[in-house]
Amino acid sequence: GDYKGPVQVRVLVINTGGTIGMVEEEKGLAPEANKLAKALKKMPMLHDDVYAKESRFPDETLVLPLSKQNKRIIYTILELSPLLDSSNMTTDDWAKISKKLEQYYEQYDGFVILHGTDTMAYTASALSFMCENLGKTIVLTGSQVPIYELRNDGRANLLGALLIAGQFVIPEVCLYFYNKLYRGNRVTKVDAGSFDAFSSPNLPPLANAEVDITINWETVWRADTTQKFRVHTTMNGNVGVLRIFPGINAATVKAFLQPPMEGIVLETYGTGNAPSNREDLLLELKKATERKVVILNCTQCLRGSVVAVYETGQSLSDVGAIPGGDMTPEAALAKLSYILSKRDLCWEEKKKMLSENLRGEMTVVPREAKICLKDT
Amino acid sequence: GDYKGPVQVRVLVINTGGTIGMVEEEKGLAPEANKLAKALKKMPMLHDDVYAKESRFPDETLVLPLSKQNKRIIYTILELSPLLDSSNMTTDDWAKISKKLEQYYEQYDGFVILHGTDTMAYTASALSFMCENLGKTIVLTGSQVPIYELRNDGRANLLGALLIAGQFVIPEVCLYFYNKLYRGNRVTKVDAGSFDAFSSPNLPPLANAEVDITINWETVWRADTTQKFRVHTTMNGNVGVLRIFPGINAATVKAFLQPPMEGIVLETYGTGNAPSNREDLLLELKKATERKVVILNCTQCLRGSVVAVYETGQSLSDVGAIPGGDMTPEAALAKLSYILSKRDLCWEEKKKMLSENLRGEMTVVPREAKICLKDT
Amino acid sequence: GDYKGPVQVRVLVINTGGTIGMVEEEKGLAPEANKLAKALKKMPMLHDDVYAKESRFPDETLVLPLSKQNKRIIYTILELSPLLDSSNMTTDDWAKISKKLEQYYEQYDGFVILHGTDTMAYTASALSFMCENLGKTIVLTGSQVPIYELRNDGRANLLGALLIAGQFVIPEVCLYFYNKLYRGNRVTKVDAGSFDAFSSPNLPPLANAEVDITINWETVWRADTTQKFRVHTTMNGNVGVLRIFPGINAATVKAFLQPPMEGIVLETYGTGNAPSNREDLLLELKKATERKVVILNCTQCLRGSVVAVYETGQSLSDVGAIPGGDMTPEAALAKLSYILSKRDLCWEEKKKMLSENLRGEMTVVPREAKICLKDT
Amino acid sequence: GDYKGPVQVRVLVINTGGTIGMVEEEKGLAPEANKLAKALKKMPMLHDDVYAKESRFPDETLVLPLSKQNKRIIYTILELSPLLDSSNMTTDDWAKISKKLEQYYEQYDGFVILHGTDTMAYTASALSFMCENLGKTIVLTGSQVPIYELRNDGRANLLGALLIAGQFVIPEVCLYFYNKLYRGNRVTKVDAGSFDAFSSPNLPPLANAEVDITINWETVWRADTTQKFRVHTTMNGNVGVLRIFPGINAATVKAFLQPPMEGIVLETYGTGNAPSNREDLLLELKKATERKVVILNCTQCLRGSVVAVYETGQSLSDVGAIPGGDMTPEAALAKLSYILSKRDLCWEEKKKMLSENLRGEMTVVPREAKICLKDT
Repeated sequence: GDYKGPVQVRVLVINTGGTIGMVEEEKGLAPEANKLAKALKKMPMLHDDVYAKESRFPDETLVLPLSKQNKRIIYTILELSPLLDSSNMTTDDWAKISKKLEQYYEQYDGFVILHGTDTMAYTASALSFMCENLGKTIVLTGSQVPIYELRNDGRANLLGALLIAGQFVIPEVCLYFYNKLYRGNRVTKVDAGSFDAFSSPNLPPLANAEVDITINWETVWRADTTQKFRVHTTMNGNVGVLRIFPGINAATVKAFLQPPMEGIVLETYGTGNAPSNREDLLLELKKATERKVVILNCTQCLRGSVVAVYETGQSLSDVGAIPGGDMTPEAALAKLSYILSKRDLCWEEKKKMLSENLRGEMTVVPREAKICLKDT
Repeated sequence: GDYKGPVQVRVLVINTGGTIGMVEEEKGLAPEANKLAKALKKMPMLHDDVYAKESRFPDETLVLPLSKQNKRIIYTILELSPLLDSSNMTTDDWAKISKKLEQYYEQYDGFVILHGTDTMAYTASALSFMCENLGKTIVLTGSQVPIYELRNDGRANLLGALLIAGQFVIPEVCLYFYNKLYRGNRVTKVDAGSFDAFSSPNLPPLANAEVDITINWETVWRADTTQKFRVHTTMNGNVGVLRIFPGINAATVKAFLQPPMEGIVLETYGTGNAPSNREDLLLELKKATERKVVILNCTQCLRGSVVAVYETGQSLSDVGAIPGGDMTPEAALAKLSYILSKRDLCWEEKKKMLSENLRGEMTVVPREAKICLKDT
Repeated sequence: GDYKGPVQVRVLVINTGGTIGMVEEEKGLAPEANKLAKALKKMPMLHDDVYAKESRFPDETLVLPLSKQNKRIIYTILELSPLLDSSNMTTDDWAKISKKLEQYYEQYDGFVILHGTDTMAYTASALSFMCENLGKTIVLTGSQVPIYELRNDGRANLLGALLIAGQFVIPEVCLYFYNKLYRGNRVTKVDAGSFDAFSSPNLPPLANAEVDITINWETVWRADTTQKFRVHTTMNGNVGVLRIFPGINAATVKAFLQPPMEGIVLETYGTGNAPSNREDLLLELKKATERKVVILNCTQCLRGSVVAVYETGQSLSDVGAIPGGDMTPEAALAKLSYILSKRDLCWEEKKKMLSENLRGEMTVVPREAKICLKDT
Repeated sequence: GDYKGPVQVRVLVINTGGTIGMVEEEKGLAPEANKLAKALKKMPMLHDDVYAKESRFPDETLVLPLSKQNKRIIYTILELSPLLDSSNMTTDDWAKISKKLEQYYEQYDGFVILHGTDTMAYTASALSFMCENLGKTIVLTGSQVPIYELRNDGRANLLGALLIAGQFVIPEVCLYFYNKLYRGNRVTKVDAGSFDAFSSPNLPPLANAEVDITINWETVWRADTTQKFRVHTTMNGNVGVLRIFPGINAATVKAFLQPPMEGIVLETYGTGNAPSNREDLLLELKKATERKVVILNCTQCLRGSVVAVYETGQSLSDVGAIPGGDMTPEAALAKLSYILSKRDLCWEEKKKMLSENLRGEMTVVPREAKICLKDT
């Protein structure tokens, strides 16, 4: 007859480190290896030990208590070595993570990546580009307080991430924190000391997990899943972020743009403005773009977009800067790294891709205003 | 007998430019000289022409309609030349503004500075240090839409700024926008497209102006007014902001820290963390601090403070970085410029001043937690 | 040849009273007749006197300066008599307003109704039902401070309301306040002392008017405009709001439900709960519903909806209460008044209409959760 | 030598019921007796079983894991019978709870009361008056999702409440929810479906519990602890809430005010306004106050206070209504019940007490505006 029991889904949890698994040491909090999985096994809200034993799961396999949707989320912790404070992560670590995703893509229904909050937005943005043809859910999460502490946000964040990764097909790299699921390439860490650490300033959250988990399907990115999932691991490291400020030295800009620099995110004022009366500055930028250094014009403001409103915005276009829309600096940096690593593309193709919305990282706004509903 | 009529107060309005006084030109919005004062004279909410004529004020003197506090705010527009889009402002312009403040300090009761929103937070921060022994109210304001447009926020912002500058003694450099008065060295522009453009993420507003103007006196900075007001006009321009990101090249950092650079704001992760496993990076920072380049450790996060929590935060202290508390990048940059320009101070004194709260730009948090009220 | 000049649109402004047109009198603020139109004529942001004179408009006709959309909004103030503090408005006043709307419907492109903030949400809700087959924009607005005061929110609110009513076809009764346009039957006054006085807790705003006016067209109600606009003026006044609280006397409930009461909004707890262990209370409610008194179950909570979650919610259904979804008390009251006045409907039809979403006043939530986009 | 070990504190948890301890039954969620303590014993974040066994605690005694403050919070669950959905609670239940507080006051350091969210604000308000000379911390808490569910807010809310009640002396009846501690007589349930269910609209929270627990000591109520704690259990049940709305029938008001009604909260418009042109209505109110029925004038608005601004506000004072400041309806109702039960007070004394701030339930605003700091 029909199997009426709960459906089993499998989630891979890649543990890269982060506060969630840290302990107090002499110099401050630091990660401790081989501790998390054991600790989770003793947390009834994150592991149903009775069910695990009945089902004879291997030691490193955990399983959540039965979910509201009548699913059993079975998960495995894959701990990277060494575990890292996310301040210490590099592009090599991104490659390492993405290769694990590729290696295990077919075996699991969804993925959770444990990560420190300090650079979680950078990794989420990077992975959103590195993952091509993504058709499954990937959720980054972590916490502001270690999961071993009495009061901590780690348990709830991990549980929410597991439930979302295991039960919903949201084919994006997401970030889950404090009851909300965000598009990974849209978030930035806004609060160093609050549980509500992240914000997606230019796009609403993808989901909310309070009394129920409610997904905003109309916001979820629609992906091309006909091609096979693959990861692009070679990100270009010759990138940087330069913040404009009044009186910035042309010499500083020149030094910053020197080889091996291949592309920068220029954090400009307001809607994408920079000095138009600084010949010395504009000259350095022009020389760079002539050398085929990409200059991506993004705003310093938390919310908002680069648009051509002011005469001072025009000066940047004149020297060859590309408008970065409403991208966060993390997403802009990741996009630059990604596209500049595509050695097979020509210069024009790279500039074109930079202006396009590849993974939902940029908002494209319709040009004409509607007067009434009939115009829909 | 007693003069029972309204009290007259005098406010100087220094017009530096900004969107508030811009018109649409070929390349976008740009300032137009000699237009604002004339336009304000025709706006009944900003000028009482009958009273002005009765009182035989000179042409360039305007006066608000009678205020609720029964005061007549008489104001003069001092227009700088050229008027600037604030993207085009430099430290020389800050010197220019502060010299006007010094020149007219005794003649006026309060001051309003019209300014573009793009770098208003930078100027407000800079002036908060450049003004020493300030005993009168200085309010920067502007708008997201020109005051000549049909719907605009300029009228309300200017009116609020005038009323506050003329009627309250708040001895600080403040910023007034969208019904709220902020400490100038605490704000940052957070929204490029909203009327609610500014935020003071680590300090509540100083005042609110809606149905009534209510001042939060307990937050207002208490200044030393026994000494005479003076301005410090020579800011050190050899400063910069460097944002850490995963994989940042040591070569980039080295180039950025080269002479003539004298001090940088290092925008780190979370509560002040940077890679502790990047020997190459830490080496460049150490070499810089050994060369007496100041490295001020501030967080990339909008809200929060640099505190020693993580092992990765310690690595920066070890190479000589100075904790920047919860300062905004604008305030940190201004403080650096100010202190590094004090040629008479020795290196140790400069480092000490950088760690102290000079103008309310940093929050100092008490160390021990209180258990109950008796401990107050 | 083609007339390339601005398009002229006509808006009728029905002035019912409210703080926006009040002056200080002995006992406090009170309306003053025949003052507003004259005062508006002297406000350049609300009246272009040069254009009015050139066009030879009659004295009581005003015209806005040219709008960004190149439209000339010509408006007439129709002042009701007496002007009312909205605390003094009754259902007769609603009838009076709606008859004016009906009388002038064909002559004008859009409508603005000046109104006090105290009962603006009630009037907006009532009119949303009383207006049948609405195909034009109706915007209620007002202010927290009289438009004659130096600092006030009246000018900006009136201007925004005129621009929206004149330039966009939003076929709803709306409420405009502090840069936001709301669905009229979704708002409630949440702040007695702030400019940001209203909230639409269970539906996002219909539009935002800051740098630009942006309409959320996907939220705007799609109306049936094939039939001719008409107003239903006879609202049933035998209605009331009863707030449940712990220990409420059955005698109080009984007295409240006595004839002539025909329908009440029962403000229950949380998601629509009331005591299930109070036989005396439930008996009174049951006797009432048996007498065909309608009991509409709405939540006391600002945000949220009545749903059947708890055993205590079931007890109300058992005695015949009708779930009121996420309606505000103002909307629920107006809906009751409207439906209970339809003498031609039978009891069953009335109950059915009460449960349906007639004017966007209630959110209907889909029952099954979506697992992935394919289910869209 | 010195005992260097953790300090032991004792907290009594009075379980009245509520969603936190509910299970799914036929008609919806309902409480289940004798289940909570057993379940908590199996939750490592709420009970340290090893320590409990080592210390040989009785079965019904639980103990939290060691806190950051090096304290051991030992707590006992006192389960009332029957456990109640808070919709079913009455003033008798308040008396029951307060008698337990009085009975165990000396034996425990702090108190937590588990309660449903539906009427938690009513109970918190009531207890704040019923408890006289309170010198210890009392925290009400609960949850929107049962603690037996996989994802729920109950664990975190209970943990936070225990830590606060056990470690801080906040001599008030408080409410703890979603990381914030509020003054109990200042809260209202604002969201029926979110974890962030409560708001204290007219007073900031007393504490925040995220990375750390931070108490806003300047807001905490300073109590008179020289007298012995006692509870006042006989609340007057002849009270009610009447919401004014346009067109309200004088007959309805008359019926509502009939004996045995002794006092009502009149929910008026805005800053405390009601119709001044409804002679019939004002007559009923006047007749009631002449009969010594108390009419407490509170605003319908979530935020704000009753102040005399409008002519329509004066009409209520004229008929004898007492201004209720910025009290919530829950606090106003509780205060009425409390004062009207004091049979030893004369009419004038009762009216005087109603106007005074007894437990921090009302904000008193200074009359004159300060111009500068010297006026402090």
